[in-house]
Amino acid sequence: MIISAESVWKSIEAIRLNSPLIHNITNYVVMNTTANALLAIGASPVMAHAEEEVEEMAGIAQALVINIGTLSSRWVESMFIAARTARKRDIPVIVDPVGAGATRYRTETVRRLLQATPPAIIRGNASEIMALALQDASTKGVDSLAGSPAAVNAARGLAAEFGGVVCISGAVDIIIGGSKTVHILNGHPLMSRVTGLGCTATALCGAFAAVERDYAAAAAQAMALMGIAGEIAAKRSSGPGSMQFHFLDILYNMKEITIEQYLKAEMLP
Amino acid sequence: MIISAESVWKSIEAIRLNSPLIHNITNYVVMNTTANALLAIGASPVMAHAEEEVEEMAGIAQALVINIGTLSSRWVESMFIAARTARKRDIPVIVDPVGAGATRYRTETVRRLLQATPPAIIRGNASEIMALALQDASTKGVDSLAGSPAAVNAARGLAAEFGGVVCISGAVDIIIGGSKTVHILNGHPLMSRVTGLGCTATALCGAFAAVERDYAAAAAQAMALMGIAGEIAAKRSSGPGSMQFHFLDILYNMKEITIEQYLKAEMLP
Amino acid sequence: MIISAESVWKSIEAIRLNSPLIHNITNYVVMNTTANALLAIGASPVMAHAEEEVEEMAGIAQALVINIGTLSSRWVESMFIAARTARKRDIPVIVDPVGAGATRYRTETVRRLLQATPPAIIRGNASEIMALALQDASTKGVDSLAGSPAAVNAARGLAAEFGGVVCISGAVDIIIGGSKTVHILNGHPLMSRVTGLGCTATALCGAFAAVERDYAAAAAQAMALMGIAGEIAAKRSSGPGSMQFHFLDILYNMKEITIEQYLKAEMLP
Repeated sequence: MIISAESVWKSIEAIRLNSPLIHNITNYVVMNTTANALLAIGASPVMAHAEEEVEEMAGIAQALVINIGTLSSRWVESMFIAARTARKRDIPVIVDPVGAGATRYRTETVRRLLQATPPAIIRGNASEIMALALQDASTKGVDSLAGSPAAVNAARGLAAEFGGVVCISGAVDIIIGGSKTVHILNGHPLMSRVTGLGCTATALCGAFAAVERDYAAAAAQAMALMGIAGEIAAKRSSGPGSMQFHFLDILYNMKEITIEQYLKAEMLP
Repeated sequence: MIISAESVWKSIEAIRLNSPLIHNITNYVVMNTTANALLAIGASPVMAHAEEEVEEMAGIAQALVINIGTLSSRWVESMFIAARTARKRDIPVIVDPVGAGATRYRTETVRRLLQATPPAIIRGNASEIMALALQDASTKGVDSLAGSPAAVNAARGLAAEFGGVVCISGAVDIIIGGSKTVHILNGHPLMSRVTGLGCTATALCGAFAAVERDYAAAAAQAMALMGIAGEIAAKRSSGPGSMQFHFLDILYNMKEITIEQYLKAEMLP
Repeated sequence: MIISAESVWKSIEAIRLNSPLIHNITNYVVMNTTANALLAIGASPVMAHAEEEVEEMAGIAQALVINIGTLSSRWVESMFIAARTARKRDIPVIVDPVGAGATRYRTETVRRLLQATPPAIIRGNASEIMALALQDASTKGVDSLAGSPAAVNAARGLAAEFGGVVCISGAVDIIIGGSKTVHILNGHPLMSRVTGLGCTATALCGAFAAVERDYAAAAAQAMALMGIAGEIAAKRSSGPGSMQFHFLDILYNMKEITIEQYLKAEMLP
């Protein structure tokens, strides 16, 4: 796994050049903002959830993003159909277990999905990752666990169980893939006051995984871009409202030199 | 019922300190913007509507906000389940009867909900409140009725029938609770050109009711904060687009001194 | 068909004066942004999709906008019910075939809808219009076809088949109604980096058709307003984030002199 300004930039250029089609089955809250973030980096978002068409849509996409933020039974069925199609075509599936641990329905739905179609990348906060790994809800909302040995062990267990990359986002983003671990130290606390920036991170993981087959690298690059854009946006913003448009403008105008200047990543042995 | 800068500020501080979890079953149009407004004032929004999980989600929330803006039968079932759970747990239920009077389905669904689980606060515009009180649609869209004796009588009747607080929002917001009435004179006409600021007011009522058990006071405080933030945002904005981000930035940065300076409230005997 | 600054302005004034109620059955991604655009120009948006109420809602509206961006079977049923009601009442129906050609479900659903209730206006990009006309998906995503003879012929065929106006949006917007064709040369490439501006164009077609019974003129006026506002917004913006709020502010503040200054339209013989 490589995480360097050069590798982040190479993937951004590939996204801008190829405009990969990212099929999102995601939650109502963030559909607009994640579509805009994908457009801002040069990808082509499509949102489609009807069981009549998800197989066909996943059949022409370069990545599939599944986000359970406002799940219900019909949507869950479509998530399974789309994920099977994506696996068959060998395109990356990215899973965002929004609110896992908050209700049994969320935790169990995601675990069933992971078992049926192990994803390329799972991205969640510490409490969601722990809820998935431990299969209970005792960690509900305990975001202070981010970066703790318990959260990292949970992510490692999940990565081992399903064979994919696990990304815990927080003050430090931790990406665990195979035996390697990367820490992304970029970002800003104001990002947590804007709804759905975690979901945006997951969607960007989809775009990066569409152009970078080393999914751990793709996840690390996406989190780096998120963190850098968030950091710069926060400096320019008076609050979470202006944060949102600055963030999109910065994604759209991102330059290699900015990534070189801002990137703070650590590769752990 | 107290409405003073001190009481508004005390509730804002309590929200910032405790980050109450506000469970929203709301409409597609405003999910993103109401989540952002709740985050901006320091609350924790969650959107969940599946019948498989609403009982559990309402079971960990500090307030439940039900908004029928884009209702359909499955969602209505979940609203009833969540409202029953909230009542059982004695957490406040806030109801926004969006479009009551426009179709029978809306008017009747809200009346059934009010009868099954009388809410802490109902917040609507004059025509919605009159449609609910009179159970017909003859007042459809008659927002000029805001503040009229007819609208106030309708609100009083509704408050008496269901035992909760009724808030009519408009150029003057009228909060009716028990025998007391409060007028909030803050706000700006540009607010009506931004979709869903009424829904945001309802969501903020949820956050305030989560920390202030006098629900009439909570509703008045939420409407005061809305009006003050809207007034300041309108001054800084060139139109309804910039209004939106200024509004969130102002909510996020609100200070006690600003509330003292701007609050225009009248308590009626 | 007339397209002049005077005619665009006359319709804008009529929208501001009459606030026509525009009933939208549209996709989750753009509900908020299209509602805001309609409010910014002075129209009254309502979003409603439940089969229990769409007949009644379409029964009080001045135009119906149907957008299949995130279609599913229940929503499609409601689209048919609402479209029948609108036809019966002789109010304009505007159809946005988002993603036609990408999946059979989309192409076939829209064709069934066009056959059951021929709309006043169909607005799509070149590949969507070609997919509808040719009933296959071989043109999928081929936006470079915009303005090509093949796309124009497809639009002409569609207009002849269903008797309505067809609008192909792209770098040049082409409006085909009866034997007349109008080109709108306004707009800016940055508009394609904001999700849902095509859907906004469709919604604005609804508002213009509510006040202008010559639907080809209404479509051309709406596209002209879109293009002019987009052009000015792009100049003021650092990227697709700030583009969004500038666009709404500019719609809200639009003046006749600005339209006179910017309008670039060509009427073809």
